[in-house]
Amino acid sequence: MTKTSTLDIDVRFGHCDPAGIVFFPNFHRWMDAASLHFFMQCGVPPWREMTATNGIVGTPLLEHHTRFVKSVTYGQRITISTSIQEWRNKVFLQRHEIRRGEDLICESVETRAFVIRDPQDPQRLRAVPVPADIRAKCE
Amino acid sequence: MTKTSTLDIDVRFGHCDPAGIVFFPNFHRWMDAASLHFFMQCGVPPWREMTATNGIVGTPLLEHHTRFVKSVTYGQRITISTSIQEWRNKVFLQRHEIRRGEDLICESVETRAFVIRDPQDPQRLRAVPVPADIRAKCE
Amino acid sequence: MTKTSTLDIDVRFGHCDPAGIVFFPNFHRWMDAASLHFFMQCGVPPWREMTATNGIVGTPLLEHHTRFVKSVTYGQRITISTSIQEWRNKVFLQRHEIRRGEDLICESVETRAFVIRDPQDPQRLRAVPVPADIRAKCE
Amino acid sequence: MTKTSTLDIDVRFGHCDPAGIVFFPNFHRWMDAASLHFFMQCGVPPWREMTATNGIVGTPLLEHHTRFVKSVTYGQRITISTSIQEWRNKVFLQRHEIRRGEDLICESVETRAFVIRDPQDPQRLRAVPVPADIRAKCE
Repeated sequence: MTKTSTLDIDVRFGHCDPAGIVFFPNFHRWMDAASLHFFMQCGVPPWREMTATNGIVGTPLLEHHTRFVKSVTYGQRITISTSIQEWRNKVFLQRHEIRRGEDLICESVETRAFVIRDPQDPQRLRAVPVPADIRAKCE
Repeated sequence: MTKTSTLDIDVRFGHCDPAGIVFFPNFHRWMDAASLHFFMQCGVPPWREMTATNGIVGTPLLEHHTRFVKSVTYGQRITISTSIQEWRNKVFLQRHEIRRGEDLICESVETRAFVIRDPQDPQRLRAVPVPADIRAKCE
Repeated sequence: MTKTSTLDIDVRFGHCDPAGIVFFPNFHRWMDAASLHFFMQCGVPPWREMTATNGIVGTPLLEHHTRFVKSVTYGQRITISTSIQEWRNKVFLQRHEIRRGEDLICESVETRAFVIRDPQDPQRLRAVPVPADIRAKCE
Repeated sequence: MTKTSTLDIDVRFGHCDPAGIVFFPNFHRWMDAASLHFFMQCGVPPWREMTATNGIVGTPLLEHHTRFVKSVTYGQRITISTSIQEWRNKVFLQRHEIRRGEDLICESVETRAFVIRDPQDPQRLRAVPVPADIRAKCE
């Protein structure tokens, strides 16, 4: 059984576009926050601290497939439910479902990897195998 | 043969996250800009004007599949190439490729629809068939 | 005595820049949310509903003076306290203080006006005197 | 005589709010870009490179006073003119004027400082006196 975290978002005027609905990249900002929130809810320290211990600087997105079902406007609250759909060797699939009450608003599957700075060239980021201790905390 | 538009983006400090690379929702902001830029390059008026004529308020995103290949940092210029991959009855598939020089950075296929405000309930948006005159301008 | 509303913000990875601290325009996004939150806490309906009744589409910012005292990073919670510092005829001064626990992070005084769409030209926004019923709810 | 840099911005749909005008924090994003653009136009290397040489990680904002004169919508181009209004010992005042053609849209004076990471505690940022070589390039 996988863990699921939830994150509430209050939609604001400034999140919406001239059509009066959420400008969709904001959903991705929130799902990114939900991705990290999932790990922190599972007891994984923030990347800032991990950088100092195991060198991990984050879990950048490699790919995602997102479907928008209903629109949302400001003054409404939405909830993002996040879980790990699959662990692979160097990547993991994280699934987000965004709902407003019962209504499904948006669903997304993200492929992400844990990355460190390349010791030879700190400007480069390099994927590492999913750390076993992090995975254990999330299951 | 489909038309292709290109849009240059200068990546700024504030587009980047603590890992020093573009925070990915910004790619979606830019692809959204590229989507509209495509229509304007094809001679379609801005939605603001279209709202007054045929009622169209925009082309919200229904679905997209995006793959990130390389990271980008500030001080770099990227170019988004945009075209229509497929016209369907009520939706169209718009394809974006983002490159830095020759390097592929990101590619995405977006499913979008033309929407109007529901005459019964102006708070609701409703998809309409792809307007023939708009399609003609884009081919 | 003026009313004061408070709004909590959880700072996320994506709110921070390559220096690892909040990219300052995000403080303005949050203070804008706090501005509207203040009115809603006072019982004023969202602009979306007001547009249909008294025509008000929002309270755009005319001027602000903002001072940043300490930086904030992700994983931290901040609280915005918002009140009306002064009502004038066509504008009002709204004051925000952002704190992390006891620490003052940022303070700002915003000059805003209530605006309607110009009946002659709906593309133009026009300031109107502060509506007495709204002011009464906020005092 | 001080140098002045200019930066053009094409305003996009996603920069605008439900009132159809630019959501004001975006002006601050653009002025932040214009601040760095000014230094790069003067021949100062990007902070990313400076971090490796003199340790400077950026020029965070300490204070600003901004006045919004006219609103802007998508499909319009604006130009930001940026100069140094005053050099002080540990801070400098940078002035931005945003225009659409002849029309003044927004003007701002920002107080900024050059910062390095505290050698004792790399999580902390510390202001340093304005580096003489950077100042010389900007005059």
